[in-house]
Amino acid sequence: MATTTKRQRELIEGRPALIVIDIQASTFIEQDVRAIDHMTGYAERMAKSRVAIDKARECDIPVIFLQEVHRPDLVDFGRELDGSEDVHCIEGDPKTAVAVEELGFLPTDYLIRKRRYSAFFGTDFEILLRGLGIDTLLLCGGLTDVCVHYSFVDAHQSDYFCRVIEDCVAGSSEQAHGYALQAMEYLQTGARRSLAEVLDAMDDFSSRDTQSAQA
Amino acid sequence: MATTTKRQRELIEGRPALIVIDIQASTFIEQDVRAIDHMTGYAERMAKSRVAIDKARECDIPVIFLQEVHRPDLVDFGRELDGSEDVHCIEGDPKTAVAVEELGFLPTDYLIRKRRYSAFFGTDFEILLRGLGIDTLLLCGGLTDVCVHYSFVDAHQSDYFCRVIEDCVAGSSEQAHGYALQAMEYLQTGARRSLAEVLDAMDDFSSRDTQSAQA
Amino acid sequence: MATTTKRQRELIEGRPALIVIDIQASTFIEQDVRAIDHMTGYAERMAKSRVAIDKARECDIPVIFLQEVHRPDLVDFGRELDGSEDVHCIEGDPKTAVAVEELGFLPTDYLIRKRRYSAFFGTDFEILLRGLGIDTLLLCGGLTDVCVHYSFVDAHQSDYFCRVIEDCVAGSSEQAHGYALQAMEYLQTGARRSLAEVLDAMDDFSSRDTQSAQA
Amino acid sequence: MATTTKRQRELIEGRPALIVIDIQASTFIEQDVRAIDHMTGYAERMAKSRVAIDKARECDIPVIFLQEVHRPDLVDFGRELDGSEDVHCIEGDPKTAVAVEELGFLPTDYLIRKRRYSAFFGTDFEILLRGLGIDTLLLCGGLTDVCVHYSFVDAHQSDYFCRVIEDCVAGSSEQAHGYALQAMEYLQTGARRSLAEVLDAMDDFSSRDTQSAQA
Repeated sequence: MATTTKRQRELIEGRPALIVIDIQASTFIEQDVRAIDHMTGYAERMAKSRVAIDKARECDIPVIFLQEVHRPDLVDFGRELDGSEDVHCIEGDPKTAVAVEELGFLPTDYLIRKRRYSAFFGTDFEILLRGLGIDTLLLCGGLTDVCVHYSFVDAHQSDYFCRVIEDCVAGSSEQAHGYALQAMEYLQTGARRSLAEVLDAMDDFSSRDTQSAQA
Repeated sequence: MATTTKRQRELIEGRPALIVIDIQASTFIEQDVRAIDHMTGYAERMAKSRVAIDKARECDIPVIFLQEVHRPDLVDFGRELDGSEDVHCIEGDPKTAVAVEELGFLPTDYLIRKRRYSAFFGTDFEILLRGLGIDTLLLCGGLTDVCVHYSFVDAHQSDYFCRVIEDCVAGSSEQAHGYALQAMEYLQTGARRSLAEVLDAMDDFSSRDTQSAQA
Repeated sequence: MATTTKRQRELIEGRPALIVIDIQASTFIEQDVRAIDHMTGYAERMAKSRVAIDKARECDIPVIFLQEVHRPDLVDFGRELDGSEDVHCIEGDPKTAVAVEELGFLPTDYLIRKRRYSAFFGTDFEILLRGLGIDTLLLCGGLTDVCVHYSFVDAHQSDYFCRVIEDCVAGSSEQAHGYALQAMEYLQTGARRSLAEVLDAMDDFSSRDTQSAQA
Repeated sequence: MATTTKRQRELIEGRPALIVIDIQASTFIEQDVRAIDHMTGYAERMAKSRVAIDKARECDIPVIFLQEVHRPDLVDFGRELDGSEDVHCIEGDPKTAVAVEELGFLPTDYLIRKRRYSAFFGTDFEILLRGLGIDTLLLCGGLTDVCVHYSFVDAHQSDYFCRVIEDCVAGSSEQAHGYALQAMEYLQTGARRSLAEVLDAMDDFSSRDTQSAQA
């Protein structure tokens, strides 16, 4: 275990953005068989993201929505059907749409479509983060052990501070969810945060930001 | 759970390469305190990679060695010291060298230096894979839950077939090792393979290859 | 100058795709002042791409349309306004749409939105090329000296065979157009091709493809 | 031509680094036939980079050296031999080494090996730029129309301010050199700068930097 004294990090370092990963209409539709397995309580955890989204808007923190989409001819699935997942997120299917009502999604919101698990892979996500001058990513959405975990890893490797809002992520199983949270905490100490902690930090950021604008 | 009938994949699809991740001199040096935690039996599992390396050479399968290195002024650590890991793999430190003797590393071997966890991030790994015309990556080395897992994910997202040789990888803890193997199997069914299975598949590839050359 | 005898390349090596770069509605609208300078005959040259598009469809060669788009709040322009170009290609502006009628664009066609000059930068272009198994890119559109040139360079660096259809590209000036063609020919001998040559090669590919399917 | 009033940029915006591209031993060795064509005065222009390097060191501006290298089995040339260039920059060949004496290269200097034209492609260049907190790239080296131009383009697309030191770059021909300079000026107004201007800006940066450290 690391023994060097290291710099303690704030929940929010520099400028934050809230990243909402793959909360799509299908999440809130009852289905007997899902193309992708979900842990119990999945939809409820996703719905809680709304609290973080509303607070971010109140605090002038940018919100970026990610949406997984695949072309109807299946040409862009790559190796995604070689494992546990079945055909999913076909463009044009209403279940693939962002969960507009549940999240309070606005037509003017930032939306990034992606064809792989990581928000960074084959997308303009990093162009947007740079344009906004973002330093810290606050992550919610699903699956904890797939798109959230692998977006975190790419952000981490690109030097962003990363926090995952535990109440607002859910995995393919409870065990996989728990492991992925551990793996993210391994990468950045203090990565796992409760929704309450994140809301407080957003408020703190907002008042700091207002003060420095008035100074 | 996926219900579509999917195409069953071979252990080796197309042309394979053996990828040896971060087996460096430090692995085989006794240390009271490690910069990075290791599960028990770590060195023994790494040493077993030698069997896969020798067989790959015998079967004319390319072997690519990855080596994690960081600049002595620590400028390239990014967020790597914000988590469980301490300063590690400094260039010029003899412990950072590839484990030449244990692996039978040759001066003519392919070596890729990397500064992040994934073999793809900020390296010429993909240039080499394309040059060699590789389709399947056979992974060994460490840590199962960090560099192996995240290299697997990037390879998966770039459409490579990926297999991890279970006997020849090891993690930061036994639990993290086990979970990472599960996560890789989630991505590609049949990703987890024993050393014995991989050696057999290498032999099969070699005879197929020879036959098609003679045809 | 290179003296080694090198392998002569076919116009189409392996599987081709036709890449139509940034032919948007604004191209065909008379404007007193343009956000981006155009050489004389620009619209006519763009319109000629239709011949290549129709032939590609006839020959079962995939057609991929690129469209430059920027967010209305200008957050994603990066350094693009630090030079000769003014604000351009705002999402939602009808002038930003693909030139549907002039190109015969279909709702089922492959469309890639990009926020930078290169078709590869921050897009899923490479995911699509891999999914389609493409080896050779046949380029048309504009500007020869910006988006066409820099897409060519990235494709070249990623090992694709690249050809530019001279009759169907146009630049910010005739001089810049000519220079960019020279620069592309420097990278791959035989990169500059007439529309007639490309149409012939498409026909040849199509008959080869049909024969091998019947064999 | 753009008509919007745009923000005028300084030669150095934020923190600068000097980027020395592909000035290798071969540059200063007389050769009857070169693998890559050079305009007249090539070596003299490369030698002038030494003035910029010495000034950068004096002003505590980081210097980053790029070196093109290819593996002796030619596996990583990609499409680079399909055009005007012959086999070049083989690893282990003394002509491939950085021009240590002419440039005053130190063993502690930052060195990035690359296998393609752009400094960003398949390298850890961006990891280093981020680690150093760089905003402006001051480019010298060769060839103006290949590695300098295409590194500039990638830097531009990644939001860096880019300046090219005209006296310290040279092309495959004088014409190609001139055109590439024009193309870079198209991307960022004020990109073309004389050595004298850059030396002055380095001095200014250094005194600003010292003052803010004392404040």
